[in-house]
Formats: sequence, structure tokens, C-alpha cells
Amino acid sequence: MPPRRAGRTPAKNAAPKRIRLGTDERRAQLLSLAKSSFSARAYDDVSIDDLARDARISKGLLYHYFPTKRDLYVAGLHEIADELVAAITAVPDNLAPIERVRAGLDAYLDHIMRLPQAYVSLMRGGIGSDPEVAAVIESVRAKLFDQFVHGTPFAAILAGNAKFEIAVRGWIGFVEGATIDWAANPRLSREDLRELFTSVLFEILRVVLPNMIPTI
Amino acid sequence: MPPRRAGRTPAKNAAPKRIRLGTDERRAQLLSLAKSSFSARAYDDVSIDDLARDARISKGLLYHYFPTKRDLYVAGLHEIADELVAAITAVPDNLAPIERVRAGLDAYLDHIMRLPQAYVSLMRGGIGSDPEVAAVIESVRAKLFDQFVHGTPFAAILAGNAKFEIAVRGWIGFVEGATIDWAANPRLSREDLRELFTSVLFEILRVVLPNMIPTI
Repeated sequence: MPPRRAGRTPAKNAAPKRIRLGTDERRAQLLSLAKSSFSARAYDDVSIDDLARDARISKGLLYHYFPTKRDLYVAGLHEIADELVAAITAVPDNLAPIERVRAGLDAYLDHIMRLPQAYVSLMRGGIGSDPEVAAVIESVRAKLFDQFVHGTPFAAILAGNAKFEIAVRGWIGFVEGATIDWAANPRLSREDLRELFTSVLFEILRVVLPNMIPTI
Repeated sequence: MPPRRAGRTPAKNAAPKRIRLGTDERRAQLLSLAKSSFSARAYDDVSIDDLARDARISKGLLYHYFPTKRDLYVAGLHEIADELVAAITAVPDNLAPIERVRAGLDAYLDHIMRLPQAYVSLMRGGIGSDPEVAAVIESVRAKLFDQFVHGTPFAAILAGNAKFEIAVRGWIGFVEGATIDWAANPRLSREDLRELFTSVLFEILRVVLPNMIPTI
């Protein structure tokens, strides 16, 4: 192997504080940093100065990618929401309905366990109180609803069943309400919570579809 | 009956556009106006000009009471929240548990039926996406939780039962999630929705308290 020539590795000894990245890489780096920073600390405790320092770029360059801290937060939240939806919808189709529900809830609770305080402040005031942020939360709910209502073996029978659809919306509300309580004060194991959600869902379905659920 | 003397009714023929009110009356008038205006139209469609015209006062005087439209909205929302909590907590103590739940739900749904679109935009983005507004919503949830957990005959047995408390939080989320769907698109009668909520609550309680609920 020929020895490297210094002229071909000009940056090798310079140990540059500022790393050149392409536009896409820089954006990805900033989003990754935003996700970890806003998950670890409250929104108001994360400053643009900290973010620029951690990314080793100037504040000016950071503002070029994300004009405000809120823009960076919302972009990071979109990514987390997409990851959450992808994890939940990745549940294999060939599982029994109750196992699909369990697997989806495991994916949901796994995500939230990684950033419980961020979840609580997102869902209850704080930065969650922003129209664009609220729209992201609502789009996640809509995707979960579609996944559940259209992705199940009994979807065709139930399409347009008002009680069923309202009950699924309500159950998503149940999961959120109970998860916020749990994330702030985890008094049950994740498995106990998942089993509570699963049991409650099937009890709710028995209420709204009394002649169908025993066969699922 | 002696004829009225003009000197004693100076305002009679003047038909004044602007009515003098004391501070408390003026504040109450503006709050009442805010509640009806924001219930009938979207937050962004209600202007300070409209509100001042409807109240027959100058914009300057309106700003004296409420420095911004948002302040007036939040003050009106506090009143509606207080009325809602008062209606729900006014349910007689001597009813059977299931009848207490039904009566509380009737009070809740009655309130929401009066202003369904305002409820949807309050709970899903829009002006609901404001930290102070979110705090009002959260305080209503906390009061409903207390009413349910501490106001029932079986409260003493269940105090501190994590599954029970998480399930009640979750059920409040269920009621909200399903009510938002229903307020936007009322496909069930109010009675059907109330019965759905009541049945779901008792099914949830059977899940978390398997040995107790049959006796309630």
C-alpha cells in the first residue's frame, strides 16, 4: 500500500472545528441534534447558541437552514412523528388482531419511553401549544386511526360504522390520556400498561360490536 | 298616574348608542359577548372591531378591560370552564354510581352541544394551541378526575390505586377523543354517545378492578 501523500489529505492535521457538509447532510445533522436536544431538555431551555455550538456551525448558518428555533423543533417533531407512525405500521400483517394491537402499542410505548418528559410537555401545553405542532399530533392520530380501521381483517365489515369509528377515536384518546399520566409518573410497568390498553380496546369493541368481537 | 316629566327622563328620547355600566357590569357584558361571539364563529373571524361595535363601546375602552383579543378569549374560556365544572359537579350525591356518571356526562355533552365547532377548534389546534388555553383545558381534566376519583363511594378503597387512576385519566381521554369526533360529525344521538361512554367506563373499571365492579 503506498504511503498517503499529505497533499491529498489537507484536512488530516488541521482538526477543523467546523466540518463541511452538503446541504442534505447538514440538515440531517441539525435535525438529529434537535431531536436529542429537545428530548433531553425543555423547549425553553434549549437555545440557538447551544444548538449552533453543538453542531459546530455559526448561528448564521443554522438560521439559514431553520429561520427560528421553533422551525427546527417542528421539523424534528415531524421526523419523530414519521418514525413513530412507521414503527407502528411496520407490525406484520399476519399476526392475530390482538397481537397486532400489542405490537403496535409496544412500538408506541418504546418511542415514548425514550423521551417521556418531551412527550408530556408536547401533549399538555408547553410547545405542544402551537398550531403547527398540534397539526403534527393530529396527523399522527389520523394515521393511527387509519392503520387500525383500514388495516384490520374486519375493516370491510366495519367501514362507516359510526359507533366503531367513534370508539376507536376514543380509544386513541384513552391511550394518550393514560400514557401522559404514565410518562409523568410511571407507576405501572410498560407491559402492564400495554396489557391495560389492549384489554380496554377489546372491551370497548365488545361494547360497540357485541355480536362480532368474540370471534376476533 | 301623573304624566312623566321630561326633566326626569333625560335619556328617554336620546336613545344613547353608548350605555354607561359599572366596571363589573361592563366586564360581565364583555365576557358574555365574547362567549357568544367565539362560540358562533372561529377565533380568527372575530375582530376587536366587531366586539367593540356589538358592545357599543370604543375599541379603547374594550382594550382597557382586555388588552388583547386573546385575553378576552381566555377570560371567556375560564368562565365556560367554570360553568362546565360546576354543572358536572352539581350532580346529586345520592344517585347510584352509574346514574352519577350519566348525569355528569349529560351536563358535559349539553355544554358541548351548545358550541360544537368552538369545542373542536379549542381541542384540536387553533386557539387551543396557546399555553394559557391549554392550561385551562388541563385544569378541567384535573377537576373531572378529582370529581370522579374522590367523589365516589368507593374512593377510599381506590385512593392511590395506579391502575384505577390511570384508567380514569384514560377514560377522560376517551370521552374527549370521541366527543371531538362527534362534535365535528354528530353521527350518534347524544343519548347513544352518553350510553357508550358509560358502558365503556364500567368495562374499563371491570378490567382494572376485576373483583370490585360487579358490586357497584
